[in-house]
Amino acid sequence: MISRVRIIGIGMGNPTHLTGEAVAALGTVDVFLVADKGERASDLVTARQAICDAVIPADRPYRLVEVPDPKRGPDAERDSAAYGDGVRDWHAARVATYAEVIESLGDAEQTVGFLVWGDPAFYDSTIRIVDALVARWATSGHYVDHDVIAGISAPQLLAARHRITLNRIGSPVHITTGRRLVEEYDPGLGDVVVMLDGHLACAALAERHPGLELFWGAYLGTPDELLVSGRLHDVIEQVRQVRAAARERHGWVMDTYLLRSP
Amino acid sequence: MISRVRIIGIGMGNPTHLTGEAVAALGTVDVFLVADKGERASDLVTARQAICDAVIPADRPYRLVEVPDPKRGPDAERDSAAYGDGVRDWHAARVATYAEVIESLGDAEQTVGFLVWGDPAFYDSTIRIVDALVARWATSGHYVDHDVIAGISAPQLLAARHRITLNRIGSPVHITTGRRLVEEYDPGLGDVVVMLDGHLACAALAERHPGLELFWGAYLGTPDELLVSGRLHDVIEQVRQVRAAARERHGWVMDTYLLRSP
Repeated sequence: MISRVRIIGIGMGNPTHLTGEAVAALGTVDVFLVADKGERASDLVTARQAICDAVIPADRPYRLVEVPDPKRGPDAERDSAAYGDGVRDWHAARVATYAEVIESLGDAEQTVGFLVWGDPAFYDSTIRIVDALVARWATSGHYVDHDVIAGISAPQLLAARHRITLNRIGSPVHITTGRRLVEEYDPGLGDVVVMLDGHLACAALAERHPGLELFWGAYLGTPDELLVSGRLHDVIEQVRQVRAAARERHGWVMDTYLLRSP
Repeated sequence: MISRVRIIGIGMGNPTHLTGEAVAALGTVDVFLVADKGERASDLVTARQAICDAVIPADRPYRLVEVPDPKRGPDAERDSAAYGDGVRDWHAARVATYAEVIESLGDAEQTVGFLVWGDPAFYDSTIRIVDALVARWATSGHYVDHDVIAGISAPQLLAARHRITLNRIGSPVHITTGRRLVEEYDPGLGDVVVMLDGHLACAALAERHPGLELFWGAYLGTPDELLVSGRLHDVIEQVRQVRAAARERHGWVMDTYLLRSP
């Protein structure tokens, strides 16, 4: 049975995003578990493999194991309680799947690693899943150590590549999701970063808040990077087109944006 | 005259926080400009020097130049407009000082670097100062390129070291300052990260929001790291004591915290 789980933030796909701490941690892992999410899998598994290849010394043995991801219910519902319940059910199914895979590893495979896009602290379920695994094993008297290594997140790369700060002087930054944005938006929140938005929810704010500035980015920090900025009202159509074309080309798109009131 | 300015996030003092991109950037800089802030200077300049020593190859020549920091007016006022004006005046004075230092560099010194604690995107004035410098030079026909490299910020290390996420499932994260916290706090904001708080402003929330959980950390990711967590009401006195003792010992304290409603 394993003795350690490491949750490692790897940035947004470019091996140069990794910190020295993350690189050192990668070199201690015997088995990396990677969620196999179906169609997008090949790209994302390939990207993780490329990161491992780039930074783990050639003489350090490790395996990358794909774990079939349980199907997730539709999360289009606007109702937060139902959304939360759906995510929790999905987490429980993932915990069971990971436990099964980990408990069948070989005796020499002592350290398991999870490679997390961006930073495990932002909108990622790995920490919650590992907490549940560790608690489950502890009830049967098996104590597994775990640690978390921060990684560069999408909002940070968004700011760096646009060469802006996320906050204005002395003002707050609010980080939220596409699902919540329209209901929640208020200029008093400060600069607003939106993550997990598959549908550019900000478009619905363009009329009501005509002065809002948009800083948008996709595939941040990689050779495919796309950046658009300007008045939300003026650039939203351009962003929509650029985003649709990119998704067509790559089969998927990872993007994020900042809204700044005048 | 210089041709390039690089603004490099260096994490919170431990060279292993640097990304590969930041390490590569450090190796291209001829002159690092470091603000000399008086009494705390020695520690912070020493820490920057240690980071440069740790990651810049020995055969790469560079200088670290201390720039006297203009005095900053008292910023205790709660009034946001006055606070903003004070910060802007101080920025203008810093721009003038940096311009003078940079314009007197030698011809071989083409690339200037700023080493920023944490991430330049969060509560840091370097990007604004460089924007002003670049704009000033452009008016006299001299175009200076600049770029920004993201670094691991204090809130990320706080989350990693406590092994928590900054958000709850599907919920927002609000990042604000100690100066604004008490007026602004509302459980609807989601999890709240507080930066730039010299006085543990959260203490004032303990009675009004008895269920609030506090995750506090100082000197994050360094050998001096301190972590405390628990119900705000139960642990605030402990945090106050730990923080005061640490400040006594080091002469300064850099800390941050997360407030989570039940």
